[in-house]
Amino acid sequence: MLVLLSGGTGGVKLLSGLKEVYQEEKLAVIVNTADDKWLPHGYFSPDIDSVLYALAGLIDEDRWYGLRGDTYNTHEMLRILGYDEFLNIGDKDRAIHIYRGEMLKEMKLCGIVERLRKVFKIKVKVFPMSNDKVTTMILTPRGMMDIQEFLVKNRAELEVLDVYFDGIEKARACSHALDSIKKADGIIIGPSNPITSILPILSIKEIGREIKRKMDKCVAVSPLIRGKAVSGPAEKFLRAKGYTPTIESLIEIYGGYISKLVVDEKEEVETREIEIYKTKILMKTQRDRETLAKFLLELLGV
Amino acid sequence: MLVLLSGGTGGVKLLSGLKEVYQEEKLAVIVNTADDKWLPHGYFSPDIDSVLYALAGLIDEDRWYGLRGDTYNTHEMLRILGYDEFLNIGDKDRAIHIYRGEMLKEMKLCGIVERLRKVFKIKVKVFPMSNDKVTTMILTPRGMMDIQEFLVKNRAELEVLDVYFDGIEKARACSHALDSIKKADGIIIGPSNPITSILPILSIKEIGREIKRKMDKCVAVSPLIRGKAVSGPAEKFLRAKGYTPTIESLIEIYGGYISKLVVDEKEEVETREIEIYKTKILMKTQRDRETLAKFLLELLGV
Repeated sequence: MLVLLSGGTGGVKLLSGLKEVYQEEKLAVIVNTADDKWLPHGYFSPDIDSVLYALAGLIDEDRWYGLRGDTYNTHEMLRILGYDEFLNIGDKDRAIHIYRGEMLKEMKLCGIVERLRKVFKIKVKVFPMSNDKVTTMILTPRGMMDIQEFLVKNRAELEVLDVYFDGIEKARACSHALDSIKKADGIIIGPSNPITSILPILSIKEIGREIKRKMDKCVAVSPLIRGKAVSGPAEKFLRAKGYTPTIESLIEIYGGYISKLVVDEKEEVETREIEIYKTKILMKTQRDRETLAKFLLELLGV
Repeated sequence: MLVLLSGGTGGVKLLSGLKEVYQEEKLAVIVNTADDKWLPHGYFSPDIDSVLYALAGLIDEDRWYGLRGDTYNTHEMLRILGYDEFLNIGDKDRAIHIYRGEMLKEMKLCGIVERLRKVFKIKVKVFPMSNDKVTTMILTPRGMMDIQEFLVKNRAELEVLDVYFDGIEKARACSHALDSIKKADGIIIGPSNPITSILPILSIKEIGREIKRKMDKCVAVSPLIRGKAVSGPAEKFLRAKGYTPTIESLIEIYGGYISKLVVDEKEEVETREIEIYKTKILMKTQRDRETLAKFLLELLGV
């Protein structure tokens, strides 16, 4: 069993490579759910949907979220009505939110993800980090807001003073996620945002504890290239938590969880704390994604 | 001021005629809201939306509900997910439900209808019968269900044992609706379903009382042609309430509310209770709708 911890874009791109070069049945993804949110029409789980759409081969590869070729007729009509829903939600994508919101009345999130996985004929296992509600809250000079309000409504333009994971203390791990870590021959922390995508997963106590036990089998992929995030506002979140956007910070954040860190080939790092491996981590093409995936498999010996 | 009481199809068709032959600014529609329902994605007000879409010139004239040329991408995706929402909801139509559901958190239904009326640049006034929730419940051999479950989920196939308007006792009239009746020079009860579209409106105590006061100015249009409803299962509902599908039953139901009844030209009725007028009531073309509308205006002397 190979386990990937994933948030949005970076982790999802790597997953698109991994599923082609590893046995899909033996691959499991544990997905951040701290970006999840009730919207007027249903329940939004952006990272889970990106993972599912990528595994189903349906993701919009221009944006790495949403469904390829989706229409926006409801969204446009809402705009005409004077209601800007901020998130650019496609019509088919919206059906997933409606379905999940309705199903949550009778089953847990992991059960719903399992149903979606079957509808989309996905062989890779997909587990939400938790069935309990965790919400990433961003403290800005304009007050506290959830991460969607920060990223989309305010276009990530505000200063970030701090980041909290509301509900994290009480959140239990999804039991299947925990089992997959226990059975894992290798664990990959994907190149998603360390603070808002990966840290929520590691902060679920049972998950964090189990990964620490297996740190010798755990490798992280840097989301940074020479101090810059490949996508998204990772730097702002790092700085808000007192880190600089450097490999040294990643080593500090992932300290105790990983024994290996894969960084960009041009990165200069000196450390004795963990093993550093250099390769091309920018994934522009499917070939890049598969090459990085193979590199990781070799590194883990799986 | 001319006031029309309307439910779905029949009333909406007549309205499409009236708005062309009368001053739109002096026309008001009081709409049945007992078919309204919370759906997973928002708040469904079928009769209000049909009235608004017809007045905006956007209604799908093949079905007399929904928006012309709408797409069904969310609906189709929900079906693929194994969730049949029964109602065939278009993508733009769904936006109206989402908007209304969201707006109900901060304002009353009449305020939302007023906003939609402005968005659609509608000059005719549109008032829900009430801002309070009234729900038409159908008692069948398979138990009690709301009217949407009966009509759509069960395709109106079950026997109807009785019809109730849940919440009607406590429902207050929308004050603008009441004012429009007080100011009315003429009142038209549209050819909508007498039991499930018109009776809920008349059963709002303040509305019923006010219309009774003005019965000399009130005309109803029959929805029946020789014992058959022009559309929908009106006969089942009539029989469940102990009526036959006849003009005599309409006279009984509308007794005390109207002084005039317009029936199909081929109808044979003998009564001294109210004035009976015969004309072509089947509205297949816009010309039919305008001709009937003119007939009513003459009758009312407005």
